[in-house]
Amino acid sequence: MLSKAQISLIASLQHKKFRNQQQMFVVEGIKSVLEFASSNYKIQKIYATAEAAAKLGKIPQNIKLEELNEVELSKISQLKNPQGALALVEIPDLTELNPDLLMNKHSLVLDDVQDPGNLGTIIRTAEWFGIESIICSIGTVDCYNPKVVQATMGSLSRVKIHYVDLEDFLQKSELPVFGALLDGESIYDTDFKTSGLILMGNEGNGIRKSLLPRIDHAVTIPRIGQAESLNVAIATTLFCSEIARQSLLKI
Amino acid sequence: MLSKAQISLIASLQHKKFRNQQQMFVVEGIKSVLEFASSNYKIQKIYATAEAAAKLGKIPQNIKLEELNEVELSKISQLKNPQGALALVEIPDLTELNPDLLMNKHSLVLDDVQDPGNLGTIIRTAEWFGIESIICSIGTVDCYNPKVVQATMGSLSRVKIHYVDLEDFLQKSELPVFGALLDGESIYDTDFKTSGLILMGNEGNGIRKSLLPRIDHAVTIPRIGQAESLNVAIATTLFCSEIARQSLLKI
Repeated sequence: MLSKAQISLIASLQHKKFRNQQQMFVVEGIKSVLEFASSNYKIQKIYATAEAAAKLGKIPQNIKLEELNEVELSKISQLKNPQGALALVEIPDLTELNPDLLMNKHSLVLDDVQDPGNLGTIIRTAEWFGIESIICSIGTVDCYNPKVVQATMGSLSRVKIHYVDLEDFLQKSELPVFGALLDGESIYDTDFKTSGLILMGNEGNGIRKSLLPRIDHAVTIPRIGQAESLNVAIATTLFCSEIARQSLLKI
Repeated sequence: MLSKAQISLIASLQHKKFRNQQQMFVVEGIKSVLEFASSNYKIQKIYATAEAAAKLGKIPQNIKLEELNEVELSKISQLKNPQGALALVEIPDLTELNPDLLMNKHSLVLDDVQDPGNLGTIIRTAEWFGIESIICSIGTVDCYNPKVVQATMGSLSRVKIHYVDLEDFLQKSELPVFGALLDGESIYDTDFKTSGLILMGNEGNGIRKSLLPRIDHAVTIPRIGQAESLNVAIATTLFCSEIARQSLLKI
């Protein structure tokens, strides 16, 4: 049986303030719960229907699982159609960013991306293309926001997300910075080399002015038709893909 | 003053059944309304606040405009934050698809894409890369769905969208068909030539089995990391971009 206190604790985790207080977030769906269970994340507790619990058979034995009926699960689910399983997952401490982890590879840097769906899609697509780390400005939407978690389709369990002061981070970093701008070299002609940071801006305002001096290579996605702009998740995808294409050519 | 009948007519246009009955859909936002006003679409009427009407100054004189206050506009708006202007636009008759319009270029073919945000993003991104026509299966989400219209950011006013029986269409078409599949040639190694159809499948099920024999070139987006799949709007974007990259190389 769920206590009122449990229900209101889980409901509160929809809000960033309470996620930060509790250092915990919610993951839903059998597949996603399994992926977090086999990742570096620590699961505090899983709530699942009997049917879902059977499918979760493979979870490590030290993880607590409470069986609920569907009505109870719907009380704590943040989804319109609850998916049988819900996990409370601890937020890892990723405030210390070891610069060595960014060497010899490409990482994404997001300046105040606001839309949860965009961040979720960026995390999912980045993983497809082998990106291991995403560095977000403090003002970027929280990656433990339920809509972000859902949109990553489990990729959040494997891609490392850091929130840092971008001005400070880019000043100290020695990696080449490729910035998505409207008046740069074509993305198809840019040599992305073997490592670097891909800097993407906010949905409405692009990259903040104070970061522009940190950009070593201004890069543009050529426009052939008349659309005024590209969605930031779409633009980020094109950078990930072009880096992959170039790296496959070098093999 | 808005009549109750007008309010309920406009509200009904959220549903496909009533859009088809009335052959009309809703466009919101000053920028989008202006783009539709200068397109081939016929606008039946514009509702706008005085402030928005001033910004709409450039619309052709034969379009009826009714000024409303913000409270009235909020009664007919389908947005959480109404954007000052709302247009009733006639659905064009695009049932006859002239095959000549698809010659010497690439077009997208969508097999039952379901999510309005995905279709909207596909239309917007397709336009960025110069795609002029999108052919949708009958089961694809309606492009005049308000969420699709919103996500296209005005591109719907310029990209042609046709709904057809895909089995019949692909059987008759003589253009090469490039199908997005999991076990094809790498997208980066595929020669997209100077014309063709890019066939994308449904979010969950991919391309329906009965269409597989129509595919001339199975094409795959190489996966470098562990993510299980890519969102269909993201995958479609990568096809549009790769075709653009190859065509820019040929100039």
